[in-house]
Amino acid sequence: MTTTQYIDANRDRFLDELFTLLRIPSVSTTTEHDDDTHQCAVHVQEYLVRAGLDKAALYPTDGHPIVYAEKIIDEKLPTILVYGHYDVQPADPLDEWNSDPFEPVIKKTDLHPDGAIFGRGTTDDKGQMFLHVKAVEAMIQTDNLPCNVKFMIEGEEEIGSAHLEPFIRKHKEMLKSDVILVSDTSLLSKKVPSITVGLRGLAYMDVSVQTARADMHSGLFGGAVANPINTLAKMIASLKDDDNKITIPGFYDDVHFPSDRDRKMMRNAPFDEQEYMDSPGVYGLEGREGFHTYERTGILPTLDCNGIWGGFMGEGSKTIIPAKASAKISMRLVSTQDWHKIADQFTEHFKSLAPEYAKVTVTAHHGGNPYVTPTDTVEYRAAAAAMKDSFGVEPVPMYEGGSIPIIAKFKEILEVETILMGFGFDTDGLHSPNEHFGLWNFYKGIETVPGFYKHYVAMKQA
Amino acid sequence: MTTTQYIDANRDRFLDELFTLLRIPSVSTTTEHDDDTHQCAVHVQEYLVRAGLDKAALYPTDGHPIVYAEKIIDEKLPTILVYGHYDVQPADPLDEWNSDPFEPVIKKTDLHPDGAIFGRGTTDDKGQMFLHVKAVEAMIQTDNLPCNVKFMIEGEEEIGSAHLEPFIRKHKEMLKSDVILVSDTSLLSKKVPSITVGLRGLAYMDVSVQTARADMHSGLFGGAVANPINTLAKMIASLKDDDNKITIPGFYDDVHFPSDRDRKMMRNAPFDEQEYMDSPGVYGLEGREGFHTYERTGILPTLDCNGIWGGFMGEGSKTIIPAKASAKISMRLVSTQDWHKIADQFTEHFKSLAPEYAKVTVTAHHGGNPYVTPTDTVEYRAAAAAMKDSFGVEPVPMYEGGSIPIIAKFKEILEVETILMGFGFDTDGLHSPNEHFGLWNFYKGIETVPGFYKHYVAMKQA
Repeated sequence: MTTTQYIDANRDRFLDELFTLLRIPSVSTTTEHDDDTHQCAVHVQEYLVRAGLDKAALYPTDGHPIVYAEKIIDEKLPTILVYGHYDVQPADPLDEWNSDPFEPVIKKTDLHPDGAIFGRGTTDDKGQMFLHVKAVEAMIQTDNLPCNVKFMIEGEEEIGSAHLEPFIRKHKEMLKSDVILVSDTSLLSKKVPSITVGLRGLAYMDVSVQTARADMHSGLFGGAVANPINTLAKMIASLKDDDNKITIPGFYDDVHFPSDRDRKMMRNAPFDEQEYMDSPGVYGLEGREGFHTYERTGILPTLDCNGIWGGFMGEGSKTIIPAKASAKISMRLVSTQDWHKIADQFTEHFKSLAPEYAKVTVTAHHGGNPYVTPTDTVEYRAAAAAMKDSFGVEPVPMYEGGSIPIIAKFKEILEVETILMGFGFDTDGLHSPNEHFGLWNFYKGIETVPGFYKHYVAMKQA
Repeated sequence: MTTTQYIDANRDRFLDELFTLLRIPSVSTTTEHDDDTHQCAVHVQEYLVRAGLDKAALYPTDGHPIVYAEKIIDEKLPTILVYGHYDVQPADPLDEWNSDPFEPVIKKTDLHPDGAIFGRGTTDDKGQMFLHVKAVEAMIQTDNLPCNVKFMIEGEEEIGSAHLEPFIRKHKEMLKSDVILVSDTSLLSKKVPSITVGLRGLAYMDVSVQTARADMHSGLFGGAVANPINTLAKMIASLKDDDNKITIPGFYDDVHFPSDRDRKMMRNAPFDEQEYMDSPGVYGLEGREGFHTYERTGILPTLDCNGIWGGFMGEGSKTIIPAKASAKISMRLVSTQDWHKIADQFTEHFKSLAPEYAKVTVTAHHGGNPYVTPTDTVEYRAAAAAMKDSFGVEPVPMYEGGSIPIIAKFKEILEVETILMGFGFDTDGLHSPNEHFGLWNFYKGIETVPGFYKHYVAMKQA
């Protein structure tokens, strides 16, 4: 029996099993769901055992457990480490769901004419994580597994993966592998496959500017003192030039753009600006001169105010010059930018923008480094070949605007590159009401994964 | 008996009578004090009767009553209209008072070695209003009143004088006069008398900038959309140039500076920058290039943010690009600037600063025109001569940074100039705990006022 035959013969069971996982409200952020989240980990463990993996175990942490399992067929063969997560975002606002978020139902949509499973966690990440379990099961059960495989499925991805870093530091030897394979990102479309090769990093800063001990009467002091709001506005405004280039000295030192070939593929990939704008109702697009929208969110770093406050914010009027104004400013990072270095550069530069006598505070709130999958490697070429076999066309290297900080940590601690081979769509409602995952996407994933194993082992041994 | 002899002979009674007024908590903003406020008006009426004025009456309004009285000695002689207010600011925070705010006590201070009366309303404005009642009483009772006099004492100055404008519109004929005399401002010092010749106007605007229907994920949209906070910051920053000059086209069209002689007197007047900075704990002074602090708050218009808000303002971090950011921006106006015209200029210019697709709202919240007392008039010269007689030196024309919008309304509706002849000090704790008014200042006021009447009539008849 071939792997494909096995998959075909077990399609309905695979779906039933996924439904079982989806019915468990493993919302990691809420303590009231702690038992559910644990129960979900136990189910993942059981499915890994049933798939044919060994040493399946729950590794307790100070938070939710990490599920680990492995199948070592030959120490000399390459090892693939699959990473995913069994926890989900909270389902609220509940009244915006058209069906129970934890009772999956299949409904057809324009993008999913074959039907999509609606429910919290369908695409992020239970459905995408589970397709790896099923693909590996198919390979093991048909004796077609061409290399070693390890699974590391955590339960805290939606709340920052706080306990995963110490886990991988502690279990470096157990997690030893040649490549990490993750399905927790998106596919451009059914006809245009893609592999995510870039995730942005983040440096999130709290700032404040104070120019007096107490609020001042705007009549008595207006015109003769620095207003901290006007001052902060001027400082923020100066952080970008007229071309929307960030002006912090050294900020772009570690920004390296992808190859011309990759950029050309990106530019030629289908991108519907109107659709992109429609989801949050954006009134207009704007960004650094000389780059198109997709490049602005993918290969360029950003600087954005996430919040600002100061002075009188109530109804009506109060004629004060406030003593202090504050803001939250975050930067998305790319390429080899290091968030600690960027935080330092920001801090030094931002402080230099204020009048000497002003009290400026800058605090780095949290951050993470960007991650870029090199595309000139066996790992990437194997993934691209698997996608091409499955979709008929070569995948586009995609740079995502968001961040998954743990991926950079994998590289730093485990010293292994990650292949981000997602099978959902951006429009599948991740983190939103009515999240769904196409049946076509689920099965396409199960079918594509064995191709990666095959090409990867062949290329490594070539 | 001369006016001076009468004043000397009645010093203690004058003080006792003022204490009676000060004991009444005529806090206009609190309905629980409505009876007190009314009672205070009745007392003012009685004192005007006892002083020898005619037609003393309470004019009811939808708020607190206006007290009116007059003494017409000869229709052909000039008429002076005295304006003041019997209402006071709330006394809180009560625990910062060293004595009962409504039980006046006399205590010595460094600036008031002869003693000062401590209590709410001592300087603002009961003490300063009452010195006019006593000065006029002294002139009437000694047969030395050289002209006609009218009193208009309101009970809503501390809450915006909402019912005074309709009152003066309705009673234009009754209020007919040649000059309005007000003591509700400050004196530079005992040795350097001053007359307030400028009050700034105000235009207070609510603004908002919206660039999307809903908040956006800063990973997916950061770099490709206009952030409304960054946009608003840039717009605010551009409202002033590097010399702190306001950039709104036409903004300075109606700004005319005082004469070189007046500006020289202002520059030579004593001004303690450190003391000025100390009261609200200002860290540094900053304003339009080429002007000193006193000019920046007196003869220059301003533009200040009074409040700003938008996006995530809580603890921690939220990686959103907000849909909207808002601010309160107010401008203090000088000279012949008109607040409606400035509000229009601001609105047009501010909207032009945003990207075309952004939704910008600008609402004029409230405002008032500036008022400038011309110094080349009989009225001003008479006031200056009275001050010189009383203090031994010529008074400095002072421009105040704050606003008393009703004074501009007097000019507009009654078509009469106002002389702002204050006798308190800026450091007397107006609107603050431990408000006080020097005994020296109280009696100096009573003695100076008859000099104004004398000089004014003489100059008018010359």
